[in-house]
Amino acid sequence: MSRPSPRNVKGFRDLFSDDLLLKQRLIDAVRKVYESYGFVPLETPAVEFVDVLGKFLPEAHTPEGGIFSFQNPDVGSKVGRAHPDYWISMRYDLTAPLARVVAQYQQHLPRPFRRYQIGPVWRLEKPGLGRYREFFQFDFDSVGVPSVAADAEACAIMCDVFNALGFETGEYIVKVNNRKVMQGILEVCGLDDTNVADETSQAAAILRSIDKLDRLGMKGVRELLAEGRRDKTGDFTEGAKLSEDQITLIAGYLSAQSPSRSEVCDRVLQLIEGSEIGREGVHELRVMDSALGGMGYGDDRVSFDPTIIRGLSYYTGPVFEGQLTVPIVDSRGRERHIGTVFGGGRYDDLIERFTGQKVPATGASIGLDRLLEAIKLLGRWETRTCTSDVLVTLMDNEYLPKYFDMANEIRGSGINVEVFLGKARIGRQLKYADQMGIPVAVIAGPDEFLEGQVQVKDLRAGMAQSSQISEREQWRETRPGQAVVAQSHLVDYLRELLGKE
Amino acid sequence: MSRPSPRNVKGFRDLFSDDLLLKQRLIDAVRKVYESYGFVPLETPAVEFVDVLGKFLPEAHTPEGGIFSFQNPDVGSKVGRAHPDYWISMRYDLTAPLARVVAQYQQHLPRPFRRYQIGPVWRLEKPGLGRYREFFQFDFDSVGVPSVAADAEACAIMCDVFNALGFETGEYIVKVNNRKVMQGILEVCGLDDTNVADETSQAAAILRSIDKLDRLGMKGVRELLAEGRRDKTGDFTEGAKLSEDQITLIAGYLSAQSPSRSEVCDRVLQLIEGSEIGREGVHELRVMDSALGGMGYGDDRVSFDPTIIRGLSYYTGPVFEGQLTVPIVDSRGRERHIGTVFGGGRYDDLIERFTGQKVPATGASIGLDRLLEAIKLLGRWETRTCTSDVLVTLMDNEYLPKYFDMANEIRGSGINVEVFLGKARIGRQLKYADQMGIPVAVIAGPDEFLEGQVQVKDLRAGMAQSSQISEREQWRETRPGQAVVAQSHLVDYLRELLGKE
Repeated sequence: MSRPSPRNVKGFRDLFSDDLLLKQRLIDAVRKVYESYGFVPLETPAVEFVDVLGKFLPEAHTPEGGIFSFQNPDVGSKVGRAHPDYWISMRYDLTAPLARVVAQYQQHLPRPFRRYQIGPVWRLEKPGLGRYREFFQFDFDSVGVPSVAADAEACAIMCDVFNALGFETGEYIVKVNNRKVMQGILEVCGLDDTNVADETSQAAAILRSIDKLDRLGMKGVRELLAEGRRDKTGDFTEGAKLSEDQITLIAGYLSAQSPSRSEVCDRVLQLIEGSEIGREGVHELRVMDSALGGMGYGDDRVSFDPTIIRGLSYYTGPVFEGQLTVPIVDSRGRERHIGTVFGGGRYDDLIERFTGQKVPATGASIGLDRLLEAIKLLGRWETRTCTSDVLVTLMDNEYLPKYFDMANEIRGSGINVEVFLGKARIGRQLKYADQMGIPVAVIAGPDEFLEGQVQVKDLRAGMAQSSQISEREQWRETRPGQAVVAQSHLVDYLRELLGKE
Repeated sequence: MSRPSPRNVKGFRDLFSDDLLLKQRLIDAVRKVYESYGFVPLETPAVEFVDVLGKFLPEAHTPEGGIFSFQNPDVGSKVGRAHPDYWISMRYDLTAPLARVVAQYQQHLPRPFRRYQIGPVWRLEKPGLGRYREFFQFDFDSVGVPSVAADAEACAIMCDVFNALGFETGEYIVKVNNRKVMQGILEVCGLDDTNVADETSQAAAILRSIDKLDRLGMKGVRELLAEGRRDKTGDFTEGAKLSEDQITLIAGYLSAQSPSRSEVCDRVLQLIEGSEIGREGVHELRVMDSALGGMGYGDDRVSFDPTIIRGLSYYTGPVFEGQLTVPIVDSRGRERHIGTVFGGGRYDDLIERFTGQKVPATGASIGLDRLLEAIKLLGRWETRTCTSDVLVTLMDNEYLPKYFDMANEIRGSGINVEVFLGKARIGRQLKYADQMGIPVAVIAGPDEFLEGQVQVKDLRAGMAQSSQISEREQWRETRPGQAVVAQSHLVDYLRELLGKE
């Protein structure tokens, strides 16, 4: 009989307690902010029909479309591959399922419908360093909100989340742009078709080019806007085929930057004055500027940036990104680029896909994995690997009920306590406590039980020594950070030792 | 262009805030108990290679084996269907992934490894009333713990969870049995092969029959132990083909019940005295009885029950179930059977599948969905649909920055507050607050802002009236539960109104 090899599927990983105890704290903090704005939870299934999800991923043109899909086991061979019920997919984000929910329950949902959702999403991409196929998103969205006040609120929420996680002004920035402004510049460039939702369009090609500004710089983007670009490996990316004049216009637009939100509006307006939709976009930005100002979210926290694109083609108005700007270095002192952890925008057409009726909606999604990575590297939060405050060592199995009783009494006072249930001598038990990071050990054997007292060892005091102690006798001699405590006072003693109120 | 129909995949569902706010409270309470025993979190991916999961489901004999599986997109047609990397499956429980993790990281994990894990699992079963294909489990397991003290601890944890959720002694029971005792009775029956892991064996058929005692009663089980049983629909289930003497022995064993744990041990021992493994099983039960007694978990909370089987064939020692015994009625006054919400046991061979080395392990899994259902029906917990404490109504878009500023100030004092961002007149805004269950509304327009005061409406006081108010003037006349508050005192006023400390 052959044994299976214990292994992960490519691009999937396991997370352990050091990461997860931080992640839980992160999730609780984000949820608290979302709830402080009145968002309510929603949970949707991991799988959806593929036609429900739609094809909004950058990989949509590849055979699998960037999605994990499988044949619906309920229909078997009863329906053909073209039938809408044939394919089931694992969700690739939390927005597409939200659009489905709004369309499906439209008569019963409150308007506005403000929901948050947390959960894993799955993408069939080539995995790489720090790129996984399963990752956690934590979204908030307002559905049924025509005013861009809701977009301003979304930017405020992103700032509040950064603050709740301990980031100060200057350590993060929320960058805002507007798809209508983008459309305006495309109109001014003289494009007939400014529909970026069609990924084969020239308009979409232009946006994709601009989206690479960070990585390729202005020179690379100009190449992509023109005939195309050959990268170092020799691969050639077809360009958007714009004329020199058009490229100059777009380059001018991309340079319309300023630390002042209103100045960005002024400069962009000059460029796109000839476009009605463009002017509308600038007006929306001005409304957001004023609403944000009213709440005290200044230019130093929320800025306007004409280069922000956001990949997903379903955005129709304001788009925004929350970026970490605090310098982050890894354990070897090398700077790590975390960048965008929050992304979102307005998508007024996504629910229309189902119902034919426009439903204005906006929201954002936080990438928990990347944020967790940043928090770990910054090291501002205390990292723990254990949940136990106290390890009750086990010296004699005969006294098991006594150990359990003692642990139960300690636990009853609000201290997390674990009885060592493996098979090991006392030295190894203490090494286990060290390895786990359990701060305090309680040691008792027949003698102690007889005398009504126990030994308490503060492992924080003697981490180094204890790893050299292998046997009980030796233990008794060295006693680093150790005290003998009457069993009747044990709970009080431990509470004080652990600093519990 | 055809529109997709907004729909769920069969057997999958959406959960909304009324359920989810309860679920969050439930999860937090359970996690707190698990952590109080020192368990640490683990997260594994949604998908695993099918050979890693193994076939331990009752549906393992069906074509899909009860599991959602799909072809690994990484191997394409490069390997045949028999290759271990060919199939990927969505996990059907959290124990199989744990076994994989222990085998994969064995050199790096602490021993004992005590982990908890929460997450959805997926089963390709026929969906039915209250039976979904996606459901949440919340497991705790101790790996590397040979002593059944760990099994006793698991039973104590289950009791603690019931208590933490507000259930009192008498409203729940943890029932314990031991696979070794079962094996003992099979030996005493004269079976050559007592291996229940082989699902085609006579031993497995006997256990499956006993497992139906609840549903079919002793008469039905006797038929299944003999030649077989024809149900009402005419379907015939092949029996275990035991002789009359053997059936009498097993029936005697199943009747060896008592409210006293030690009496169950005595009675069972009499029946299986001739079997060494059976005697070992009874001894283990006695050790558990004594450990549980030491902690104060009496016969009224943890009982021994020879009829408990637990379906999964990987258990090797003690098995346990946590059942709700409190009467639960639905909204129409009909009694609802919730029954088992916790299940678990010892599985010393599950990690051996990978490594060839026995690693003793035990633990249990709570079914969150069923438990949530029970808590909802019992109605002891306050149900909410909203997270907002206060709705700031919007009367004039010109004053948006002022509304946002006011909301922000309220929010800063720890009150959850939402600015109405839909498009609706004041009456509809107040109806929205009613529908969501938001307790308090703040109303202000140009006049109020000029006078530096706002109107505060306690919606709890005037729920009925407010639904008939459609316009602002009418509103001003009726003023149910309403007060005019100086803007400078608004936060204090709201904190008092909402009973915030």
